[in-house]
Parts: sequence; structure tokens; C-alpha cells
Amino acid sequence: MFISKKVTEHTRNTSQVEIVSYLSNLKKRSGEELIDLSIGNPDLPPCDEALEILRESISIKGIHGYGNLEGLPELKHQISEYYRTRYHVDIRPDEIVIVRGIRTMIFSLTSLFTGPGDIVLIPNVAYPSYFLATEFSGASQYLVPMNEDQGFIPDLDLVPEEILAQAKMLFLNYPNNPTGAVIKKAQLEKIVKIAKQYSILIVYDNAYNEIVFDDETPLSFMEIEGAKDVGIELFSLSKLTSLAGWRISFCTAGKEIISTIYEYLSLTETAPFNGFQFAAAKAIEMVSKHNLGHTIAMRYKDRYDSLSKVLEKIGLSYYPSKGSFYVWIRSPKGTGRDFADFLVEEAKLLVVPGEYYGPGGLEYVRISLTMPDNLFDVFLKRLESMQFSWDQAQITENH
Amino acid sequence: MFISKKVTEHTRNTSQVEIVSYLSNLKKRSGEELIDLSIGNPDLPPCDEALEILRESISIKGIHGYGNLEGLPELKHQISEYYRTRYHVDIRPDEIVIVRGIRTMIFSLTSLFTGPGDIVLIPNVAYPSYFLATEFSGASQYLVPMNEDQGFIPDLDLVPEEILAQAKMLFLNYPNNPTGAVIKKAQLEKIVKIAKQYSILIVYDNAYNEIVFDDETPLSFMEIEGAKDVGIELFSLSKLTSLAGWRISFCTAGKEIISTIYEYLSLTETAPFNGFQFAAAKAIEMVSKHNLGHTIAMRYKDRYDSLSKVLEKIGLSYYPSKGSFYVWIRSPKGTGRDFADFLVEEAKLLVVPGEYYGPGGLEYVRISLTMPDNLFDVFLKRLESMQFSWDQAQITENH
Repeated sequence: MFISKKVTEHTRNTSQVEIVSYLSNLKKRSGEELIDLSIGNPDLPPCDEALEILRESISIKGIHGYGNLEGLPELKHQISEYYRTRYHVDIRPDEIVIVRGIRTMIFSLTSLFTGPGDIVLIPNVAYPSYFLATEFSGASQYLVPMNEDQGFIPDLDLVPEEILAQAKMLFLNYPNNPTGAVIKKAQLEKIVKIAKQYSILIVYDNAYNEIVFDDETPLSFMEIEGAKDVGIELFSLSKLTSLAGWRISFCTAGKEIISTIYEYLSLTETAPFNGFQFAAAKAIEMVSKHNLGHTIAMRYKDRYDSLSKVLEKIGLSYYPSKGSFYVWIRSPKGTGRDFADFLVEEAKLLVVPGEYYGPGGLEYVRISLTMPDNLFDVFLKRLESMQFSWDQAQITENH
Repeated sequence: MFISKKVTEHTRNTSQVEIVSYLSNLKKRSGEELIDLSIGNPDLPPCDEALEILRESISIKGIHGYGNLEGLPELKHQISEYYRTRYHVDIRPDEIVIVRGIRTMIFSLTSLFTGPGDIVLIPNVAYPSYFLATEFSGASQYLVPMNEDQGFIPDLDLVPEEILAQAKMLFLNYPNNPTGAVIKKAQLEKIVKIAKQYSILIVYDNAYNEIVFDDETPLSFMEIEGAKDVGIELFSLSKLTSLAGWRISFCTAGKEIISTIYEYLSLTETAPFNGFQFAAAKAIEMVSKHNLGHTIAMRYKDRYDSLSKVLEKIGLSYYPSKGSFYVWIRSPKGTGRDFADFLVEEAKLLVVPGEYYGPGGLEYVRISLTMPDNLFDVFLKRLESMQFSWDQAQITENH
């Protein structure tokens, strides 16, 4: 009787929606022995100091009323401090807005700054919400070429002039989901220059910020000359502090952009719980003080190392992750979805077919490194033992 | 450099946005002695039992990860129980979706079910977000006539046939913000019948549900025959349990409508914190068990009685509130905004000009009854002492 204008047959058939049902069906079909490598829910415990602040906050008079949408000064102060100590960048309180999670913000920003007739530039493999937010805003998407050889950095030189002229927004995300790629400062500087030239707003999704491996250095978009004028950095506590459920994230940008975002949010949104804001201030303080980002990065690096050894051993081709907690593996035969089907059938391992992240991911699958230690070991053993059945695998080309 | 597609000059000039800046400017201009009667933030303390559950939840392993978007079974169970004990209505878990606050849902639902070419029916005075959500979705608004004599119930008989045929959604809200009106079951039945005839989705905003005075009985939209097929009830914990900051609300509707809403939210939203969901289950249980809604209603009724005595004494004309925590007062001279200006200047009392709620409110102001007890007494004294200056008031007609 009531037809949704958004959740239509069309939306349901986009890869970003279709694969969600695909995964959910696989989960339902499989028994308890299934190991779910499809989600990126951090499994490390959050820091006690932040939880203590949260616990104390519960008794504060009035704390359970509406939250502070402008952001508690203490939280903004700690965000400034974090930027200062970690990236040597000066971010003032009026260059910060506290938001309820990066995903919701992707939809809000796309709807706020783009609409029918506009083009949104999305890297050829990217976090699925960029595609869907563009769909919902009414703008058109243009896939920016990127490939494994060039370390999964979108190449704006390959985008036609007339597309750049019509483009209103570009999504970037490093450390990257799903590829595990990172971006170098010089590469980012080049993109910022082009964006400035064509007045393209960069939405820089820094959800996995400090989770970088080896000799990589965590990079903030705000370190780039002129970044504040041309883009927005999205930052989340979910990955860095394992507080995903609190939905405390923040945007940083130049004062003018932040003030437009704040104006929109003040009309449509409500603020995160003040107790979370107090505790998040402490969590960020601890991240800055004890370099917790590095500790977490090392943890995922260890897991990545163990996994890559097994991948080498069984002869699977993969992109060497430089950060985030994902590994991007090429299907040995057929599409990524064929391979995902095979892994569920043969080893009860659930991974995400790469097409979920755009057409460039058709031949890949993504594996997430976030899971309890004991399960991770079982996963590695199961994967390793597949070597034989592997060679015999009957993966059809067009499953 | 970056032009928002939503926060435009046009949006800024709608009453719903313009008055927000007006109030904010008045607040900035006024000193500490200002009493703010413009906001409806419940000032009663939340129940200890719920806070205790929240406190305990902080130590649960994994609780700080992503929340459960489907809604914790315990919470859905308590919502069912609440409907059963309070309204004698059977609501199953698949007829409930847990959401992050009513306001956000107003925007989501309007965007989900309406778009350019559609008409949204909005009562002539109504909660401002209905207007803005319609604006943002691209649909057109049609103001349904309602007036004080008929108890502020929108009269669909006065809406032309061709408008009804094009209408996709109708907003209703009782107990009403800003008028304090309530709706009778028979009146609602009549509206449901018409909505069904024309396939108009009713969004029934029940934010103030149990806050009704005298011999009024709390009413759920779901009590109406056929309601599940034609509408959505929005319910919030903010007012009933004074837990506004948690952003725990819920929608109830028929299974098919709920499943469409859930599908959309699963693409765009993230779930409320699981600790809040556990604690909210307890809060709702306490509301059901101890009839807390009635206790809260009596508290605001007392305040309303005190205020109405003063209003009678100083000779101000007002609509006798039947529920919610607002009083809708007619400006004695000039527009509601003239009167609001006067109250700030002369008595440092901040009220909302009625045009914020639509053109039907032009000659009114809204006063909120939510404030600490000591402030409420000061407010009453200040208002009462205005009687003299009142007669001399120089309120210009076209301020």
C-alpha cells in the first residue's frame, strides 16, 4: 500500500544492498561452526579510564537530558590536543563538530552538499555507503579508476575534464576499507590541488586512522596544505578505542564548512549522550597520551602477519595490507562471489565478495582481522588445511 | 566555495529555521536572569532502576561494540508489555523498530516515503520538523485547517479531493505540541478512515503520550481499528522517563511497514547503544508497572494549574491544555512575536513565537512547563507582577 521512495527494487539490486542479503542468507544457512570474517567490529576491550568516567557520569544531575550538539568543550579540547600531538596540526574548537557515527554523516554530508545534476566521485573500490548515499541524494556517481599496481589510489588524471567540472564531492578513505592500502602525503597533496582547482569537496574518511603497519606514519587529511578549505575529515572513536556502540565521531574542516554542517545538523539531528562525550574526551586523551593507536595497530599487524604467512603457503594472491584491519584477496578462480561461496561451503568461513565495494572489486574478497583470538587461530588452521581441497576446487566461472 | 543543497537562503527564511536564530539571539542578548520557557527538556530525574541497569551494563564484555539495530529482544518484549497493559493492544516484536529519537525519524520517514510530486499534509500548527522534513524530501506541504474552537484537530473534510488524492503522508501529534490539545478516539477513527480511503500514511507522533490531564485517557494510535495498515506510531522515552539524551525511541506499525523502515535504517543508520537498550527495557517496565506516566502527568498538571491561575488573573487568553507540557497563549496585542519580544524586554521571560509552528500560530506564543521547581515559582511571580506594565504595554501591531 505504501511505496517507499528510497528502498525500491532499484536500490535492492545495487551491489551494496544485494550483498547484504547475500551475506545474511549465508549466515542463516550455516551452522554454529561458521567463522564470520565479514564484519569489522573491533574486538579489543575499551580503555578502563573512559569507562570509569562514563560510570561516574551516570550520577550527574541532568546528564540524561538532551546532549550538547555543539560538543562539550572538554571533548573538543581533547580532539584539538590529539591533532596537535599526533599530527602537529592546529584545529580550533570551531573547526570541529561532534557527530553520531561516520556512516550517518556520509549520508548527511552527501545530502547536504549534493543533489540531482551533481556528480560524486567515488573510487572504484570503496566503502559501500558512499555509493548508496549518492544514490539517495539524487546525484550521479562517477567511478574514479584505481588499481592494485598503483596501491589503490584513485587517479584523477584519468577523469575527463567535463566530469571534474560537474563533480561536487570526492570520497577518500585511508587506511582503506576494503584494500588495506594507505596514501602518502604527496599523493594526497596532488589530489587536494586538483579538488581545489575544480571546487570539489573532499570527504576524507579517516575511520582507521592510526591503524597503519611497518614504517607507515598515521596521516591526517588536515596535515595537507589547504585541506581545511577543500575538505572534511571524518574521524571515529569506533576503531581506535573500541567504542563503536557509542556512536561518537567527529568532523573537522575549515570554520565555514563546519558551520554549514552544524546548521544542518541542528535542524535534523540530535546530539550524542553527554556522558559519552565526557568519557570520549578521556578516551581520546588516553589515545594521545599512551599512543594507544600504535598498540592497536601492532595487534592487527600481528594478525595480518600470521594470515599472510598462511596465504603465501596456500598460494593465494593478496594485496599486502599497509593498514586498517582488512585483507584484500584475489579469487584464485571465478569471481570473488564464487570464491566466497566456496569458502562457506568448504570451510565455513564467511568473507565479503569484493563487488560489494564497487565493480573494481569483482574478483576479490575482503577478510576482516577483527575477531576473538581463539577464533582467529581456528580460522587460520581451517584456511591452511584447505590447501588440498583447494587444488581440486570446482569453482565455476559464472556462478 | 561549497554550496549546501539543503541549508539555503530559502531554508533559512522558513519560519522553522528563522525563529531558531531569533531565539538564540534573544538568549545571547539577555543576561543570567533570563528564564527560558522555550524548551521542552523534561526536568524530572530518571528512574533509579534504569540507571542501575545502565551502570551494570558498562562492565558487560562486548557491550561497547555496535548496538543491535533489530532491537534487543528484552526491550521489544517490554514495549509489547507496555502496549498490552496500558492500551490493551497486541504489538508483536516484528511490529516494532528501535530508533534514535523521534526527530531523526521524522526526517527519515519523510525521505523514505515521500519525494518530489507528493503532498504531505501538515496540521496548520505543528511540530516544526514536519515542515522542514517535507522541505528536505522535496515533497510539497499542504496545511490542514484546524482551530481552537474545534480543539486543534485537523479537519480533513476541508481538504480538497484532489489534494487528498495526491497526499502521501499526514502528520498527527497528540497530546499536541504546541497547543496542549488531545484527540478523542472517535476523532482519530474518522481520520484513519479517510487516510485509508486515500492511501495516506499517517505518522502519529506520540511523544507526550501519557502526559494527559483530568479525565483524559492516554491514547495509542494502535488502539484504532485498522491503524497498523495505515500508519506509524512514534514513541519516545524522552518525556516519559526523562531519558532524552539516550535517544531511545521506537516506531510501531504493521509488519510490512516496519520491515520497509528497517530495511532503510539498516542501510543508513546505526543502532542505539546496547546498554541504553537494556536500561530502556527496565525503564519501560517501571513505567508499565508503577504507572509512572500518570505520576509525571500529575506533576505537569499541577504546574499547568498554577500557571492558568496566574493567566486568568492577569487576563491573558490561552487554550486550556489537556496534555503535553505546553501552554498555548494568545498574544494580547500584535503578533506572537511582538508579545515574545515584550516578555523578554519587560520580564526576561523567553517564550516561542507561535509562527514557529506554522501560519496558524501567528498570534500565539508557546510556554513550556519543564523547568526546575524554584525557577518555575520565580517565573510565576514575574508573570503575575506584569499585570500593571501589561496594561501600559506598547506592543506595536507590526513589529
